[in-house]
Amino acid sequence: MSDNPAWATLKRLEETIAERALSGEGASSWTAKLLGKGTGACAQKLGEEAVETVIAAISGDKQAIISESADLLYHWLVLLRATGVDAEDVFAELARREGRSGIDEKASR
Amino acid sequence: MSDNPAWATLKRLEETIAERALSGEGASSWTAKLLGKGTGACAQKLGEEAVETVIAAISGDKQAIISESADLLYHWLVLLRATGVDAEDVFAELARREGRSGIDEKASR
Amino acid sequence: MSDNPAWATLKRLEETIAERALSGEGASSWTAKLLGKGTGACAQKLGEEAVETVIAAISGDKQAIISESADLLYHWLVLLRATGVDAEDVFAELARREGRSGIDEKASR
Amino acid sequence: MSDNPAWATLKRLEETIAERALSGEGASSWTAKLLGKGTGACAQKLGEEAVETVIAAISGDKQAIISESADLLYHWLVLLRATGVDAEDVFAELARREGRSGIDEKASR
Repeated sequence: MSDNPAWATLKRLEETIAERALSGEGASSWTAKLLGKGTGACAQKLGEEAVETVIAAISGDKQAIISESADLLYHWLVLLRATGVDAEDVFAELARREGRSGIDEKASR
Repeated sequence: MSDNPAWATLKRLEETIAERALSGEGASSWTAKLLGKGTGACAQKLGEEAVETVIAAISGDKQAIISESADLLYHWLVLLRATGVDAEDVFAELARREGRSGIDEKASR
Repeated sequence: MSDNPAWATLKRLEETIAERALSGEGASSWTAKLLGKGTGACAQKLGEEAVETVIAAISGDKQAIISESADLLYHWLVLLRATGVDAEDVFAELARREGRSGIDEKASR
Repeated sequence: MSDNPAWATLKRLEETIAERALSGEGASSWTAKLLGKGTGACAQKLGEEAVETVIAAISGDKQAIISESADLLYHWLVLLRATGVDAEDVFAELARREGRSGIDEKASR
């Protein structure tokens, strides 16, 4: 994993969020509080971060795109946790489509 | 990389999108067409996929959350491409915050 | 009502949407088809139009802001219909807050 | 106007927002502060309220749909103000389409 720091980061984040989730409603961590508010609050946060990413992109502000994208990915992982979905399953779905869409894209040339 | 299929998938997708981007406006691939429409169209698509992910989460439909999340990640990579931002920079930002927020979370306990 | 064409338009639209809703699933009207797909599809459309309005605003394109705002209001009325809410109730809520917030704003000066 | 309280409310809100806008950056009103932050902040708020309306609709919570719709309309008017667009122009666009789409819908029956 040492040669894939990016993926290692995502994996560690998922684990950190899981730990914070376990700390429960009384926890002082921001993530634990958000998870304590339920799926609606986590989904709302994902939506907000997506809008901020859209605004950063339209504004052409690269530093803001990086920063808002980081927020987006983080809150996407929090929403997965709130709904009991593993990030691995999403990546497996992407890999599955990759094979198929590779064929689609070739066929459409 | 063989033991990190998830990250390898994300990395391959970024490369595939880059290749499709190079195929230009006349290309028949759906991704190339979207990129050919510019940043606004790519940002709009990210926003749409985020709304679909929100709806899937509120509906409590795990399969839909996986499917819409895959769409969200894919179109996030397309938007990064449209705006000339590397996914690596976003993961580096997440890693940077991880150290800091680890301290914040401990301090707030 | 003749001296309030704007409100008359909104009111007529609500009635038109209601008529189309009654025409049922087999109807060929676009609005009837959208309503036939259910609340999820109508909510998704509202989200899309909001993102387009955001993009138009950030782009500073006044004509696009007008056009996307018209789409946003129309699909907001469709979503109200899908969920069985009257626009009148929303305006009553705005009027109720107006009194209260008028006081809030004065108090905070 | 007395027999169209709904439209009168919308019109008064637009005027109130315009007054608050004039009170400038130092103003203590929440609306004045939001306008002082610029178009990006106002657009972000519209996006957030749209996501909340979507969540309320999917959750099937009528009171929340009314409340979030009121927020959505209010922040839409704030965004119009931030971008220098009159609500009248949006209603005129809706009226213009109404004629056209009436024909479209008949033709498609």
